[in-house]
Amino acid sequence: MELLVERGVEHAGIEQIAKRAGVAKVTVYRRWSSKEDLLAAAIEHAREDLPNTADAGRPAEALPEVIADLLPRWGEVLAEPRFRALTARLLGAGPDHPRLLEAYVRHHVEPRRERARAAMLQAQAAGVLAADADVDLLMDMMTGAIMQHLLMTPTPPDAAETTAYLGRLLRQAGFDIA
Amino acid sequence: MELLVERGVEHAGIEQIAKRAGVAKVTVYRRWSSKEDLLAAAIEHAREDLPNTADAGRPAEALPEVIADLLPRWGEVLAEPRFRALTARLLGAGPDHPRLLEAYVRHHVEPRRERARAAMLQAQAAGVLAADADVDLLMDMMTGAIMQHLLMTPTPPDAAETTAYLGRLLRQAGFDIA
Repeated sequence: MELLVERGVEHAGIEQIAKRAGVAKVTVYRRWSSKEDLLAAAIEHAREDLPNTADAGRPAEALPEVIADLLPRWGEVLAEPRFRALTARLLGAGPDHPRLLEAYVRHHVEPRRERARAAMLQAQAAGVLAADADVDLLMDMMTGAIMQHLLMTPTPPDAAETTAYLGRLLRQAGFDIA
Repeated sequence: MELLVERGVEHAGIEQIAKRAGVAKVTVYRRWSSKEDLLAAAIEHAREDLPNTADAGRPAEALPEVIADLLPRWGEVLAEPRFRALTARLLGAGPDHPRLLEAYVRHHVEPRRERARAAMLQAQAAGVLAADADVDLLMDMMTGAIMQHLLMTPTPPDAAETTAYLGRLLRQAGFDIA
């Protein structure tokens, strides 16, 4: 994952990976027959630590405060150069290495969406979000806006800017938060 | 641009470009001293043909119909494999070739945003979009959702699906269209 983030798929070959890991190439080939297999496995097993509203263990009515409390932590994780670089590299891998993008979407993007969906349904139930909102589309809009904000701005936003942006985004999405 | 779309920045070197253009390498070096200079110039001069609501030359009140008329054409352009591949490759170029991503953002993404902004202000003036909408953020959400929809779905959507998606998106964004 280090090599993938630092140098990209094209320069994260078995040879470079073995070198970085301090093992012989043959040791790597014993488990993975190609760079794609190895990178897909690495992507599948990588951890992510975006905190979850459900983890707060507080009642639905407290959702606006739970979200407000989590915003700075979300801003911090999303603004990490590592997160940005990984997302850019895997989106960029789409045309030549669709399997790697798929592994990322299946093991990272979709679980994140599932958690966001649960939080949004919870928000609708608590009256914090309009009952008639198109939840799936709203998730595309929110995650898409974040992606665009992180990847398409010449000077990458820092944690505080990202946190402020997330607040604006939740409000425009229709969340009734402070 | 063909090479960039087909093979990506890493494989679009002066040598390959000269070969594809059927000229000698020295001919290319006479105008561009590096692959990055040449690719940045190619990106700057590439044409894009997303039709514009202002081009319809119809009064502001007709905006909902103008948008409805344009949706299929937008869906068609956005669903083109070429458009998807170029966007993916340039987002992916961010970490190693920020200059190329910047050229793309400045010469393609920002002009598109400016046109979208003008259409949204026009929509607000015509009462087709809520007067208190955060227009800049709404643009991030809409372009971000499209990006996400085009680049992160394992099976790329076709023109009809993209058109339907754009309609859903405009409605969730608060556009009062048919």
